[in-house]
Amino acid sequence: MNSDYGVTPIGTVRSCFPDKFGVPRQPSLCPHARGEVVLSSPWNTEEAFRGIEDFSHVWISFLFHQVPADQAPSALVRPPRLGGNTRVGVFASRSPFRPNRLGLSLVRNQGLTRRHGELCLAISEIDLVDGTPVLDIKPFLPWCDAPEAATGAWANEPPAATLPVRFSPQAEHRLQQIQWDYPELRDLIREVLNQDPRPAYHRDDPERRYALRLYDLDVHWLVANGTCVVERLEKA
Amino acid sequence: MNSDYGVTPIGTVRSCFPDKFGVPRQPSLCPHARGEVVLSSPWNTEEAFRGIEDFSHVWISFLFHQVPADQAPSALVRPPRLGGNTRVGVFASRSPFRPNRLGLSLVRNQGLTRRHGELCLAISEIDLVDGTPVLDIKPFLPWCDAPEAATGAWANEPPAATLPVRFSPQAEHRLQQIQWDYPELRDLIREVLNQDPRPAYHRDDPERRYALRLYDLDVHWLVANGTCVVERLEKA
Repeated sequence: MNSDYGVTPIGTVRSCFPDKFGVPRQPSLCPHARGEVVLSSPWNTEEAFRGIEDFSHVWISFLFHQVPADQAPSALVRPPRLGGNTRVGVFASRSPFRPNRLGLSLVRNQGLTRRHGELCLAISEIDLVDGTPVLDIKPFLPWCDAPEAATGAWANEPPAATLPVRFSPQAEHRLQQIQWDYPELRDLIREVLNQDPRPAYHRDDPERRYALRLYDLDVHWLVANGTCVVERLEKA
Repeated sequence: MNSDYGVTPIGTVRSCFPDKFGVPRQPSLCPHARGEVVLSSPWNTEEAFRGIEDFSHVWISFLFHQVPADQAPSALVRPPRLGGNTRVGVFASRSPFRPNRLGLSLVRNQGLTRRHGELCLAISEIDLVDGTPVLDIKPFLPWCDAPEAATGAWANEPPAATLPVRFSPQAEHRLQQIQWDYPELRDLIREVLNQDPRPAYHRDDPERRYALRLYDLDVHWLVANGTCVVERLEKA
């Protein structure tokens, strides 16, 4: 390993997003996107989190583990927000294809839970794929993490959630059948598809069908006449 | 190296704080605290920062390199903000004594400069000691990095800058002599000492004299009758 420092995960993300397709491009876009950090030894103790309940939000420092470690990051990237054609510097973007593959997400703190002997920090509004290695968790400090006068250029405002979503009768029926097991699934599907997860270069192809995996379900959808239609849901 | 992932710095901080004594406990407390990230190959190219000028603030992900790598972090820490006696979980604090020694600071972006062949990102409002290895630089995105409803418990408000500061006639004279080389030094000294960098367990000892190094100067001071007196400045 040709590197100067070593890091070891303190835990692993368990998330509603088993695949990266459909993962929101930043946190906060999908309030119903839920997950948890499953803590690893020696950090799976309540002591290490004493006082965490006082903070509404926490920073998750993580590794973009699905980017191959041997893929050399390039100096320029193409943010989806700019249509996928404009190139900006990797350090002027939040692209996953970056040195050290280090990611940073502000998520809502839903509290510490112990389940089947595992200690977990529940989190929501996430943009983290299942299996993400977590390197650190820090509390959000409003007075120094959120400068009033900050400006963010083309990323000053959230991306418009432009794609209206409707459910086919078949999908509606299925949602009702499984609502006991997946009580927020309808909201989550709507929030994820609102963001239009299609790659920019697909958008001229109205016939294309997509499957998006949420939890252990494949959500099948297409875009017709500017509306996203959820056709059906299937167990993965 | 018994670790799961390797990371390599993209650059190193050059800072007005050569030692950790006196470094502000978070960014933004000392507007005149200035430094720069000196970029290392292969990241010392303007391309990698294209568009950075559009962002007022950037996140610096760094290593607390002055914490020994072999010092095992403990689950509980004593934040100075709580008087140094109350213990909270390491993940409910921003203590440097933490797993992976990973730090995170939001600093003001002062722009890219090239000097003597080195490419540097100038930054201010810093809380970073000279020589800090930088692992990543990311733009601050107001819409997802600063939730409106965030709450931060005992760290909701900035610490009160309680220590009034005055300069001895000798210190005043010296400041005037060197003001061409250190134009903002008076402001910086005031901002740093306002925060009262003394360890909590020193505060009952009025005779104690301190030296704080800023740039290549030793600033000598003491606290008398609740006021910090800067006695003199000397070349280090």
